[in-house]
Amino acid sequence: MEQYRIEHDLLGEKKVPIDAYYGIQTQRALENFPITGYRPHKELILAMVMVKKAAALANMQLGKLDKKRADAIIRATDEILSGQFLDQFVVDVIQGGAGTSLNMNVNEVIANRAIEILGGKKGDYTLISPNSHVNMSQSTNDVFPTAVRVAILKLVKSLLAELEHLHEALLKKSEEFDDVIKMGRTHLQDAVPIRLGQEFGAYARVINRDLLRIKAASEALKEVNIGATAVGTGLNAQIEYIESTIENLRKISGFQVYSAEDLVDATQNVDTLAAFSGSLKILGLNLSKIANDLRLMASGPRAGLHEINLPPVQPGSSIMPGKVNPVMAEVVNQVAFQVMGNDHTVALVAQAGQFELNVMEPVMVFNIIQSIEILTNVIKVFREKCIMGITANRERCQDMVNRSVGIITALVPHIGYEGASKLAKEVIISGKSVPEIILEKSILTPEETKVILSPQNMTQPIYSHR
Amino acid sequence: MEQYRIEHDLLGEKKVPIDAYYGIQTQRALENFPITGYRPHKELILAMVMVKKAAALANMQLGKLDKKRADAIIRATDEILSGQFLDQFVVDVIQGGAGTSLNMNVNEVIANRAIEILGGKKGDYTLISPNSHVNMSQSTNDVFPTAVRVAILKLVKSLLAELEHLHEALLKKSEEFDDVIKMGRTHLQDAVPIRLGQEFGAYARVINRDLLRIKAASEALKEVNIGATAVGTGLNAQIEYIESTIENLRKISGFQVYSAEDLVDATQNVDTLAAFSGSLKILGLNLSKIANDLRLMASGPRAGLHEINLPPVQPGSSIMPGKVNPVMAEVVNQVAFQVMGNDHTVALVAQAGQFELNVMEPVMVFNIIQSIEILTNVIKVFREKCIMGITANRERCQDMVNRSVGIITALVPHIGYEGASKLAKEVIISGKSVPEIILEKSILTPEETKVILSPQNMTQPIYSHR
Amino acid sequence: MEQYRIEHDLLGEKKVPIDAYYGIQTQRALENFPITGYRPHKELILAMVMVKKAAALANMQLGKLDKKRADAIIRATDEILSGQFLDQFVVDVIQGGAGTSLNMNVNEVIANRAIEILGGKKGDYTLISPNSHVNMSQSTNDVFPTAVRVAILKLVKSLLAELEHLHEALLKKSEEFDDVIKMGRTHLQDAVPIRLGQEFGAYARVINRDLLRIKAASEALKEVNIGATAVGTGLNAQIEYIESTIENLRKISGFQVYSAEDLVDATQNVDTLAAFSGSLKILGLNLSKIANDLRLMASGPRAGLHEINLPPVQPGSSIMPGKVNPVMAEVVNQVAFQVMGNDHTVALVAQAGQFELNVMEPVMVFNIIQSIEILTNVIKVFREKCIMGITANRERCQDMVNRSVGIITALVPHIGYEGASKLAKEVIISGKSVPEIILEKSILTPEETKVILSPQNMTQPIYSHR
Amino acid sequence: MEQYRIEHDLLGEKKVPIDAYYGIQTQRALENFPITGYRPHKELILAMVMVKKAAALANMQLGKLDKKRADAIIRATDEILSGQFLDQFVVDVIQGGAGTSLNMNVNEVIANRAIEILGGKKGDYTLISPNSHVNMSQSTNDVFPTAVRVAILKLVKSLLAELEHLHEALLKKSEEFDDVIKMGRTHLQDAVPIRLGQEFGAYARVINRDLLRIKAASEALKEVNIGATAVGTGLNAQIEYIESTIENLRKISGFQVYSAEDLVDATQNVDTLAAFSGSLKILGLNLSKIANDLRLMASGPRAGLHEINLPPVQPGSSIMPGKVNPVMAEVVNQVAFQVMGNDHTVALVAQAGQFELNVMEPVMVFNIIQSIEILTNVIKVFREKCIMGITANRERCQDMVNRSVGIITALVPHIGYEGASKLAKEVIISGKSVPEIILEKSILTPEETKVILSPQNMTQPIYSHR
Repeated sequence: MEQYRIEHDLLGEKKVPIDAYYGIQTQRALENFPITGYRPHKELILAMVMVKKAAALANMQLGKLDKKRADAIIRATDEILSGQFLDQFVVDVIQGGAGTSLNMNVNEVIANRAIEILGGKKGDYTLISPNSHVNMSQSTNDVFPTAVRVAILKLVKSLLAELEHLHEALLKKSEEFDDVIKMGRTHLQDAVPIRLGQEFGAYARVINRDLLRIKAASEALKEVNIGATAVGTGLNAQIEYIESTIENLRKISGFQVYSAEDLVDATQNVDTLAAFSGSLKILGLNLSKIANDLRLMASGPRAGLHEINLPPVQPGSSIMPGKVNPVMAEVVNQVAFQVMGNDHTVALVAQAGQFELNVMEPVMVFNIIQSIEILTNVIKVFREKCIMGITANRERCQDMVNRSVGIITALVPHIGYEGASKLAKEVIISGKSVPEIILEKSILTPEETKVILSPQNMTQPIYSHR
Repeated sequence: MEQYRIEHDLLGEKKVPIDAYYGIQTQRALENFPITGYRPHKELILAMVMVKKAAALANMQLGKLDKKRADAIIRATDEILSGQFLDQFVVDVIQGGAGTSLNMNVNEVIANRAIEILGGKKGDYTLISPNSHVNMSQSTNDVFPTAVRVAILKLVKSLLAELEHLHEALLKKSEEFDDVIKMGRTHLQDAVPIRLGQEFGAYARVINRDLLRIKAASEALKEVNIGATAVGTGLNAQIEYIESTIENLRKISGFQVYSAEDLVDATQNVDTLAAFSGSLKILGLNLSKIANDLRLMASGPRAGLHEINLPPVQPGSSIMPGKVNPVMAEVVNQVAFQVMGNDHTVALVAQAGQFELNVMEPVMVFNIIQSIEILTNVIKVFREKCIMGITANRERCQDMVNRSVGIITALVPHIGYEGASKLAKEVIISGKSVPEIILEKSILTPEETKVILSPQNMTQPIYSHR
Repeated sequence: MEQYRIEHDLLGEKKVPIDAYYGIQTQRALENFPITGYRPHKELILAMVMVKKAAALANMQLGKLDKKRADAIIRATDEILSGQFLDQFVVDVIQGGAGTSLNMNVNEVIANRAIEILGGKKGDYTLISPNSHVNMSQSTNDVFPTAVRVAILKLVKSLLAELEHLHEALLKKSEEFDDVIKMGRTHLQDAVPIRLGQEFGAYARVINRDLLRIKAASEALKEVNIGATAVGTGLNAQIEYIESTIENLRKISGFQVYSAEDLVDATQNVDTLAAFSGSLKILGLNLSKIANDLRLMASGPRAGLHEINLPPVQPGSSIMPGKVNPVMAEVVNQVAFQVMGNDHTVALVAQAGQFELNVMEPVMVFNIIQSIEILTNVIKVFREKCIMGITANRERCQDMVNRSVGIITALVPHIGYEGASKLAKEVIISGKSVPEIILEKSILTPEETKVILSPQNMTQPIYSHR
Repeated sequence: MEQYRIEHDLLGEKKVPIDAYYGIQTQRALENFPITGYRPHKELILAMVMVKKAAALANMQLGKLDKKRADAIIRATDEILSGQFLDQFVVDVIQGGAGTSLNMNVNEVIANRAIEILGGKKGDYTLISPNSHVNMSQSTNDVFPTAVRVAILKLVKSLLAELEHLHEALLKKSEEFDDVIKMGRTHLQDAVPIRLGQEFGAYARVINRDLLRIKAASEALKEVNIGATAVGTGLNAQIEYIESTIENLRKISGFQVYSAEDLVDATQNVDTLAAFSGSLKILGLNLSKIANDLRLMASGPRAGLHEINLPPVQPGSSIMPGKVNPVMAEVVNQVAFQVMGNDHTVALVAQAGQFELNVMEPVMVFNIIQSIEILTNVIKVFREKCIMGITANRERCQDMVNRSVGIITALVPHIGYEGASKLAKEVIISGKSVPEIILEKSILTPEETKVILSPQNMTQPIYSHR
């Protein structure tokens, strides 16, 4: 038989499960927001608790919070940071504005655990009050944005590490395929030769730019607004409290967060979060482009380009025997689409802020965290199960170059664009190869032909020989 | 000590947990796609299993599947449809293209359960093969799209019901507030009087249009492509099989699905899904507008419009005592933003189809299902915990009308736009009320003033009296 | 030397070019909104003028507007409708909210022209006032939305006609290519045979659905809010006026517009416009998919799929002689991207409405009209210069089928999925063709092989022969 | 009677207007792409011509282009750069992929003008060939992307200047309003006091961040790929040519562009353009938020917040006399929506690149340029006609603070959250002011009340006094 305790707040009383560390406001949130069924991300919970610990320490140091209560609160936060009670953070990721419900969930769990530590019974908030003590000198409006930034800084570390690994893997492939000559394509039409290694080199470079962009965008998140309290004016917070809390939070989190120069600005604007999400979106766009190229190059095996082989990771079809699909590239595409959609939600939030606060932050945070996480996850498997195992079909690549018309471009400096155009037409109609026609028509000597039409020579700018 | 069995497929062998009903291909998918951590929606799993049952019945009826195997397969599907084994559907919602992994997860669970029913041991696919028997005459490319539609048809029923309830609740409020005169506003500037009931009536109407639009868009999802197999050509399916499977699926699902006239079209195009998602987006836009209006009207209590009161559902602030926030409206806004972002992802998928199939469907389906569900959830609590309890501050509303300048508009037919403009200027500068000035200047008689400036009269078109 | 006349309004006086038919409020708008440099679309101007004419007729019929003025106003509108004075509509497409500046631009041009007709001098608004007479019984808030709908109804006719032509052209190609057997592809990997005609048939069907969807969405735009005046309450309009104006507008425009049942709803909500834009977006998605397929099929000529040839319409490269690019398909993709972006802007507008009006409509209308127009334009050239001239490379298509492994799928009913998988592996490794291996291993007799592996047979569901 | 000359190319011959400086390929483009009716932006044309001049100089210096032809080409480019012949650049902004048509339009105009300079007749390309001479060592694929960057660098200068002006104007207002105490609002509900100057200070800071973000994003555009030619391999370009062209382009353009380290990467990826567009989007989001706040604060005049007055710039309504609307803020919102939509199109382009080139660039460039330009335009008028003229209604602001309940928050450190909550309830029910109740109940002395409830004190963090 389930049992309850009765708690009360401004609006009245309510039953709370007797064993729950959360209290009445969390209970209300559970009833008010049964939206997605998803609970807050673990790193966000931990970051919230870090902020609480940092504030409790500061309040104690400043003499605002008595040592007995402070010690109990700090011990409670330490227990949570060590991994306990995580099942007590139960409010939905999409909730009423600003993250109040999450903040109160955290306040209540810490308070009730601290009450227990002091020998009290859950719900006896005269010992430790979620609002007066745990939330002392704080507001949802500074705790939540600060914690969000700490959580993102933590999560983005893994993403950046995976990007670095992906960058290296692409570079390695770039070297491995440096001598694979293939047709370059523009407009999906045969253009002029290129080396497969150059293509992977380009992939590596764009991923490196993503890495730098995301890193730069995340740097801006080190500016936090703790101490802003309700509207950025710092009401009920003191300057010493702010300084001390920031200092504590640095130690606890390991991130060099710093106080925003203008707390009103930092409380009402979410542009740095939107810009950070934007940097994830660009990564999504680039990953999608790479995945698309790989899928095209691996198309076939017999009715496609078949320039490369992606490592098979699972049978491709429930009906077609022997079919293997580029599933790792496809999942990259899909994650990219999800990240683009998430960024769209983030932008909608950013333009919906009003006056001193952007209350729509919870859904923004849900989307940003999801984007970081699915990008991190997919990049890891993409590298391990796709990129690293790619092999080139060298002969096939070379063969397509040999049969191509595009190499005629190298003759433009010798016979002009118009002359080359006529020749190209002949090649196409005749079905012959370019060198054949050139020699047939004595346009170049065999030696010249060899040098000028060398695909290798065509794949990089050269010093002219005058 | 965990134990394994060994299974094998086209690519080799792999350990599978000994108790798992899923098999090697699911195991591969688990390793290949650790992306979101979210498992497929229950209704999607059930719909997949319904399709499997419908196909097994058809294959048996046509003599393609022997009765013993068919009976076992059908019993296994019945068990799942009754709620068993749901923990065995473990592949990630974002997975390799087309939903192959989900289809194989379903095939394997059904096969292994059917094997057990036949007295065999899990993994002994000679008794029942996931591909040859459970997936007989099928392909992921027809099973998944068909099941997706059945699942959406199921889920949308709840959404439509909630929309109907919301529509009714708004209509009721419209009646309740029919006599509440308030200032109408355009450009956020005082315009001319309107009745609060008219505003709620407008909300009711737009929600009703959403209901009709979503219903219409979901009707198009009754067209399914089962029998299309791999590319829409129906290879390995017979016409009798298609007819029979459709017939079975109607009975099992309760939805009047029908076979697409052109299976090639139905297999490669996802436009009806995109259009359906679009109808959800429009609902999101409209809900967001309504939520915004309510938040504005409820702003205050003392430094805002304060025309209405939203029922308090939780204390609003961890720092500001007595503050109550419009959290139910805010969560509506946030869900709307999420749905708009989801629709963006859906559109990206829709334009990424290639040739005979749109392999990006899994992420599309994840987003559509999430949109339906969070809309359904939020509309319910929005109605119950917000709309139904709204009260009007009649005096406050009336008072703002009395003090307003905009009612001068009613004089335009009498003294012209230019004359009325001059008068308006005087009213604004003097700080007096419009009737005061009119009487002061003897522009109208007191009787005329009463009739012409009656706010009630201003709130609806009238028959002219010539 | 340029000359001016002085006009004045509520805010003061201002110089207006002496020859201008527009007046002071247009002049203010020119100075306030130098944003895009684009002027309103001709059809929108004409529709605005139609509404003015319809209202003037109604006001005259009801005795609200004297015959002399009414005649002059009506004659002025007729002149504009015949194509005169179009250079006088000069306000920017992105302007202050609600379209007030466009409405006043129209009011002023009609007034000044009517003044001239009455023998007066431009600017002498005692003869005809832009507000009191031309705008009589009207508000920007009903005139603009009504005119927008009339303009869209006009423009969409051309789009629907082009869609019909495109549909027919695709159908014709579908017939022409009905016997071209080619490899079907899923995941960009070789799947099983399909006919090129089937692919074009699928394109035709999805375009037909777009046509129906757009038509249905445009039907909802026949509901107009003229008579709503400022906030939908019809202040200063009479019921007879509304009925008469609607009746007049039907005759003038040729569209069966009708009065919204609830004018408050119709004035504040733009969901039907957003839904209409959404239907254009879906068309964009589908066109993009078709264009992508064509570009892939036409890739090559020697290092690509080269299944079809798109008619060359211009040299493809400034540097590569003989290169021809699929530019008509590319421009379709780009228009699709533009339309998707436009729809995004439209959705942002739709959620930004507040209270009685969505003042952001001008930018919404600009985007919707642009979408219709560029879609209409691009579909025409796409059909004429691309679709109609597509030819198939039959041998190439057949050859890829013959060499493919995927046809092994047809053996699954005969040797099981697992057996067929093993065979497929052998085929891939050996480099041989499927029939070769089958005959070599005596899996089927030559006669069976011929029937079962007939690509033609594989391309459609058949009746089973038991 | 219009007259023609006949030109021919790879595909055949075509009539070109006899006076046109453009030639057959432009003529084809006109017929192929009648899409938007918009011609390329002037700055893009000029940047294209700068690249042509830079390349011609380099080709001459390297002895690849004879002096006579080079001189003529250079003189032709100088004439265009001085503003002549701009009406000859006639291709549509949305055109076939990659910008080939624009490049050929530029090549042809320069060639024909250079031919004239040499005394020849337009169309006599034996004197100067658009491809062999004007386009020497170049490809659309390096010329267009390079020119796009130069054009953006030019256009962004104006935007950055306007942002700087806006920043200053906001700062100035921040100082002017530093002593205006008003209610801070979160969730649109009364929170705690803030100063109007703090709000404008926050606006200033976020705009400054936008300035820095856009500047940083534009810096990345200084990396150009001229010399990459067709696919980034530099075929037909020499290293000396690349170095010389870059050097020339720096001098001609005045921008310190530099050669991309990896030309293959720089030719195929458009991520820096997408990221730049993203920075414009963030600006749009922030401008929209500021515009929304201003519209809310200026709401009324009698039935709204009415905290500030926006300068009236035009009569607000065609029907409601005396109404003035926040049109400058509304046009900012609309531009923001347009920019967000444009960024969406840009992102769609970015993910559509394939292999060596992103051929969808023309529509991307159209959207980016439009975004820069409408932002620049709107920010200027927003500052001049709105921000600079804003005035505060000090008494109204103060009055709302005095009547507010939120100031009770300052009592939390003194009587606890729970005690303050009870008090807040009493205040709300009684309708009295907070100080009244406090004194009535002797909770604080009059002196304490004065200090603790001083709104001014509540608006900034203070040092604690222990």
